Amino acid sequence: MTREARIVELRRNVMKKNDQLARELRERFRARGTFVVNIVSSPGSGKTMLLEKTLHTLSHEMNVAALVGDLATDNDAQRLASSGVPVRQITTGTTCHLEAEMVTSALEEMPTDGIDLLFIENVGNLVCPSSYDLGENFRAVLVSVTEGEDKPLKYPTMFNSADVAVITKMDLAEAVEADIPKLEENIRRIRPDITILHVAARKDVLDEWITFLQGQVSGSPV
Amino acid sequence: MTREARIVELRRNVMKKNDQLARELRERFRARGTFVVNIVSSPGSGKTMLLEKTLHTLSHEMNVAALVGDLATDNDAQRLASSGVPVRQITTGTTCHLEAEMVTSALEEMPTDGIDLLFIENVGNLVCPSSYDLGENFRAVLVSVTEGEDKPLKYPTMFNSADVAVITKMDLAEAVEADIPKLEENIRRIRPDITILHVAARKDVLDEWITFLQGQVSGSPV
Repeated sequence: MTREARIVELRRNVMKKNDQLARELRERFRARGTFVVNIVSSPGSGKTMLLEKTLHTLSHEMNVAALVGDLATDNDAQRLASSGVPVRQITTGTTCHLEAEMVTSALEEMPTDGIDLLFIENVGNLVCPSSYDLGENFRAVLVSVTEGEDKPLKYPTMFNSADVAVITKMDLAEAVEADIPKLEENIRRIRPDITILHVAARKDVLDEWITFLQGQVSGSPV
Repeated sequence: MTREARIVELRRNVMKKNDQLARELRERFRARGTFVVNIVSSPGSGKTMLLEKTLHTLSHEMNVAALVGDLATDNDAQRLASSGVPVRQITTGTTCHLEAEMVTSALEEMPTDGIDLLFIENVGNLVCPSSYDLGENFRAVLVSVTEGEDKPLKYPTMFNSADVAVITKMDLAEAVEADIPKLEENIRRIRPDITILHVAARKDVLDEWITFLQGQVSGSPV
């Protein structure tokens, strides 16, 4: 076997193991009534800011918790802990994505019994996390208005694997002359049936996102 | 050998091969008098915008060229081609970084004889490209003011492997309430001796960067 063929085979085995563990996680979350959202984006798209405001808002009406993936720091977990809800950091070292096995380990230290809604903030990366199922109910990809309208076309796998696209930092759209219809058109070129939401978390504008989450958790059609 | 040990060994071989090819590239660039800059950043930090303005500015005084890495599109190469300088796209598929071998292949189609300054725009990713030497003279990491001050601490390998940090979108610093001294402090916590430059390419403010490049290419101390 050539080196390339061996790498492909090993990678296939890693993915197979991840998919198996993700299935077990999904079964476990369903049995306990925990709805799970996997949040992915490039670094700096505003995952932590959105999550911070979301936890504050939703913690008054349901039991929420968060797992946060990062290469090297627990800054995000510390920021999110201020909301008073259970938060656990997963530090991945040099690995550019979360894997189902990391989520399984983290849950040993943070049981999710009684949790209605669990957020998993993935490592900031528009490539690697796309292939790793974490047992989530849906995957939300964030893209900020400052990143340019062509991001969906340049990172198609990530946008294609997401169920919801959240356009963030809408308050900056005018300052950066963002073409929002063009961005939405490019998102839909990759994934025609995707739900697109808009937020400006810094300005506390996140009602589209909150309403969507409430609908998902209560099982209402969106 | 366990699966993990085999993956580590295969990865080591891939890196060893890349380092060997990068050494050959570096030797070749030196022999031809081509200065090479590897530009890395997360998606949306403004690599292409900066490069577009840089090529326009420098093409009046020296021979410049660019290689552009992307997963799936040649949008960036098309944007850069408007400058009239030689530009070549490298499409990486699902690979989240450029490798020395891809650069070697691209050079077969775009010879760099007579080129004074070659830019290599890496795939937008703050993790994967850090380990791959492309034979460059220096590596510039871009970080935009909209990304948050803690990025260097969260992606230390990338900032540690860079020689120059370019803070981009300075024109938005006030609107996003960016703490530039804090961002610079965090960059220097990871890499104390790094050169830090500031640009606002959209507003044609890139003199710090242009002066730095001119100094590098002419061999003057910076």
